[in-house]
Amino acid sequence: MIARNGGEPMLVDGGLEILDESECRRLLKTGYLGRIGVTIEALPAIFPVNYTVHEDSILFCTAPGTKLSMASDRRIVAFEVEGGVDAMYHHGWSVLVVGTAREVDNPGELKRLERHLPTPWAPGQRRRVVRIGIDLISGRRIDHGW
Amino acid sequence: MIARNGGEPMLVDGGLEILDESECRRLLKTGYLGRIGVTIEALPAIFPVNYTVHEDSILFCTAPGTKLSMASDRRIVAFEVEGGVDAMYHHGWSVLVVGTAREVDNPGELKRLERHLPTPWAPGQRRRVVRIGIDLISGRRIDHGW
Repeated sequence: MIARNGGEPMLVDGGLEILDESECRRLLKTGYLGRIGVTIEALPAIFPVNYTVHEDSILFCTAPGTKLSMASDRRIVAFEVEGGVDAMYHHGWSVLVVGTAREVDNPGELKRLERHLPTPWAPGQRRRVVRIGIDLISGRRIDHGW
Repeated sequence: MIARNGGEPMLVDGGLEILDESECRRLLKTGYLGRIGVTIEALPAIFPVNYTVHEDSILFCTAPGTKLSMASDRRIVAFEVEGGVDAMYHHGWSVLVVGTAREVDNPGELKRLERHLPTPWAPGQRRRVVRIGIDLISGRRIDHGW
């Protein structure tokens, strides 16, 4: 069910279409709210995050000291975004990225990324910038039911 | 950031409200599209699924032989659903369930659950019914940015 990099688009049973890499990358850039899958104290967890895509990476912000901030440093994480979801007809698309998350703590890199980050937080609010490299990307489009 | 069973609602910094268990259970029942977090060949993955809630379990269907179907049998999985998401004002809620997934393969149990499953699949289409026990449930409401 996962299309590897460079995979050709294909139709499989159940109205499921595997998307090629360029379509996955295009769709990923159209979203603003995704979900990160991490492991916290040996249990799986999923959290929604606002994100942007820049320089082959996903960028998001989290508050220092949160469980998400601790779980997403130097770990391999999953990141999923979906769109075009229609409740009545059950269609839409979903793109899945797998990559290594790391905190951006270099001042030069932080400054350079500043204007590419998701919607700015309130002034004075502390935040941690996390970057996920897009190591694997895959996607599916569905036309009747997930 | 995770409210354990029986936790009281509380406000934390960043406009994040931890929801209590009864509110999490109520919100979980209002959704129809969630995301399951599983591990496939040692890599994390997240897939959207249509779901229902019945008898303290989450029910969803998947096609036999898919990676999702193989990854969700007798594993501890994460299941997340969100709602009330407003793009402009960045608010909404997210509920996270952690529990053991298992295939429902007992004919009596299948028959009993039939009318509680998500939107029926096309006639003749093979499907596998998966049930996730709600072992841990937690949730957050956010009013400016995830």
